Amino acid sequence: MNNTAQLHQLNPNAIALCALGRWIANRHWVPATGGNFSIRSGEYSALVTASGKDKGELSPQDLLPVSWQDGKLSCPGTPSAETALHARLYQLDPAIKAVLHTHSVPATVFSRLISDDSYLFHGYEMQKAISGNSSHDIPCALALFDNTQDIPLLAQQVAQRWQQQPLNWGLLVRGHGLYVWGRSPDEAKRHLEGWEFLINCELERLKLTR
Amino acid sequence: MNNTAQLHQLNPNAIALCALGRWIANRHWVPATGGNFSIRSGEYSALVTASGKDKGELSPQDLLPVSWQDGKLSCPGTPSAETALHARLYQLDPAIKAVLHTHSVPATVFSRLISDDSYLFHGYEMQKAISGNSSHDIPCALALFDNTQDIPLLAQQVAQRWQQQPLNWGLLVRGHGLYVWGRSPDEAKRHLEGWEFLINCELERLKLTR
Amino acid sequence: MNNTAQLHQLNPNAIALCALGRWIANRHWVPATGGNFSIRSGEYSALVTASGKDKGELSPQDLLPVSWQDGKLSCPGTPSAETALHARLYQLDPAIKAVLHTHSVPATVFSRLISDDSYLFHGYEMQKAISGNSSHDIPCALALFDNTQDIPLLAQQVAQRWQQQPLNWGLLVRGHGLYVWGRSPDEAKRHLEGWEFLINCELERLKLTR
Amino acid sequence: MNNTAQLHQLNPNAIALCALGRWIANRHWVPATGGNFSIRSGEYSALVTASGKDKGELSPQDLLPVSWQDGKLSCPGTPSAETALHARLYQLDPAIKAVLHTHSVPATVFSRLISDDSYLFHGYEMQKAISGNSSHDIPCALALFDNTQDIPLLAQQVAQRWQQQPLNWGLLVRGHGLYVWGRSPDEAKRHLEGWEFLINCELERLKLTR
Repeated sequence: MNNTAQLHQLNPNAIALCALGRWIANRHWVPATGGNFSIRSGEYSALVTASGKDKGELSPQDLLPVSWQDGKLSCPGTPSAETALHARLYQLDPAIKAVLHTHSVPATVFSRLISDDSYLFHGYEMQKAISGNSSHDIPCALALFDNTQDIPLLAQQVAQRWQQQPLNWGLLVRGHGLYVWGRSPDEAKRHLEGWEFLINCELERLKLTR
Repeated sequence: MNNTAQLHQLNPNAIALCALGRWIANRHWVPATGGNFSIRSGEYSALVTASGKDKGELSPQDLLPVSWQDGKLSCPGTPSAETALHARLYQLDPAIKAVLHTHSVPATVFSRLISDDSYLFHGYEMQKAISGNSSHDIPCALALFDNTQDIPLLAQQVAQRWQQQPLNWGLLVRGHGLYVWGRSPDEAKRHLEGWEFLINCELERLKLTR
Repeated sequence: MNNTAQLHQLNPNAIALCALGRWIANRHWVPATGGNFSIRSGEYSALVTASGKDKGELSPQDLLPVSWQDGKLSCPGTPSAETALHARLYQLDPAIKAVLHTHSVPATVFSRLISDDSYLFHGYEMQKAISGNSSHDIPCALALFDNTQDIPLLAQQVAQRWQQQPLNWGLLVRGHGLYVWGRSPDEAKRHLEGWEFLINCELERLKLTR
Repeated sequence: MNNTAQLHQLNPNAIALCALGRWIANRHWVPATGGNFSIRSGEYSALVTASGKDKGELSPQDLLPVSWQDGKLSCPGTPSAETALHARLYQLDPAIKAVLHTHSVPATVFSRLISDDSYLFHGYEMQKAISGNSSHDIPCALALFDNTQDIPLLAQQVAQRWQQQPLNWGLLVRGHGLYVWGRSPDEAKRHLEGWEFLINCELERLKLTR
């Protein structure tokens, strides 16, 4: 085990992220070893879940150190295939400390029902769970992107959209899943629960009103 | 820690309310730190959950003492933003000992489907879980209110409706969630399960019959 | 504690029934202290759950001894209001050793959708979970009864229907819930899971095909 | 206990399969003692779950040694009625090390909605959870077969279909359930979660789009 690896095993955020992984797996939001999580470890670095691991059975050594100071991703191991999108989010906002990517049935289904590149939630008290939103009465937008196997391209599209306006602590990739982030693992978890709740409500409402 | 705080940590009802919070969180009825709970501690006082806490991880010191003897809320801390509604319920009926406010997907979706200010449940044996209802054959009303960020205004609307007729141990705030209460924490829990069950059944029935 | 009570606390079936209650409560099939369970203790007697108890928190002393040798129910305590139907089932078939009554959302909703007094399940492998059914290809009937607060009347209607043909190890009371029984607690549990599965499948299928 | 039985109790794969059974039972995918599991123990042999056991309560002695070297199944005990299909799958591909058969509500309902003998999943990132599928953009086929009580006949139909093209690590039996397999118990589990997720998504999407 190298020094970097030893170091991050003592990281309390790494231990917290593994516990959060078990909580998320119990909600069935990361089936079939899907999904990936990260926490920032420096201005140009993060710990990212290794590829192919069951996210309900993580231990700190399953978090791989990734850095991007030189503009290219470097990592001693095989981090998640979607690491480039995590890294881009950390670059877009220095306040971001954690990124969670999940695959729930409702988020996946909802992402395919909506063909626009953004969906406005309105009239839900739960909108206030997403930081910066203070009333059910002010619409709260969730960005959607088409899925692609070219993650650097997806990361670039996210960055372009961000230039127009910072995204609302989450985004959906169509037929793929949900990304959320926060200024702490706890805030990222709150954004995950908040967006999942809003998506779930809207899906049930559509069943009853369309 | 002040004397008041020390005192309520020994309160067996406070310990029971924390355990009830874990049970409710396991049902996914208080996502994203949402919801709030209280238990009466005196004629003009209650212990109310602190703002922003995960309701599945409460300990007695997360319950803040609130009093309203002088007509204004006073509290050494930041209790839930919806404390004014809890306090009003305790004032409306001295027998009320516990108030629970939850955010389930079915209750939230149902509250937006119904535009009337009351919904009559009829033909469910489970109506008997709501105190004072003795037969599936007698309609059982659940009051609905529009959501607002002005909680004292909402509390006033609830009080006005109550003058016409005491509410049926629960109410829905549209797009927001469910409030229930009881003469003990156990009765409040039974009312919570009963109303959630009835709402859930009616939502599934509407999917199949509308 | 009287001798009868002491005796049934040593009954391994009573301990098994309490454990089964926790399993059933975890499925959310007995919300709001609803539902009731019993096990036969003799030719004319059974242990029946006490009224108003949370069925996920039973201990053997919450099972009350009930007897009906003289044609009338006798019990030192307040057993479930629906004890008369349990007793009738034990009388209808001496092989019955356990009766379980539950309140799931799907069973309750399904019971209100079907206006006939019987529903035929067909084409499900799971029909074989109900004793005496050996193929998905032979229809398997579930009897339905209108709800009433007059339990002796309901028990009489069940007995009348049974004279025409023994019921298929379960029945639905409309808007109320499911009764199942078996020649052992394990068989009653299998019938509970089997009927709940079949009802759930048919409800989902109706959403997609009506 | 005979030597064979003693031997397989020390098999770490047998212990892993029992643990996997508890995980699957917690998802409610093997209700009413339904479903069956096996792991390969040799070129012409496997350990198969005994008939009628609750799959959430397996211990290694509930796995029975089955062999088929002479073309006929032989087993000292009563293995699952569907053992012949497990054996056929092991014969069709020597790389297969584990077979899981489950009865979920969504898989059962979906299997009855689709009257074709194959269904193409398209546009889901989760298709990549099924080995050999590398993009959401390449359709991924799930084979369907009519149910029958004649398991050797079903096994023969599966083998015939396989000759045209190896199946995609899973198949549905109409009104019955899902079979999945893998080159390890972990891969079989991933295929189970992946197919269940895809079926669930498609069922929810059909509710909203048909």
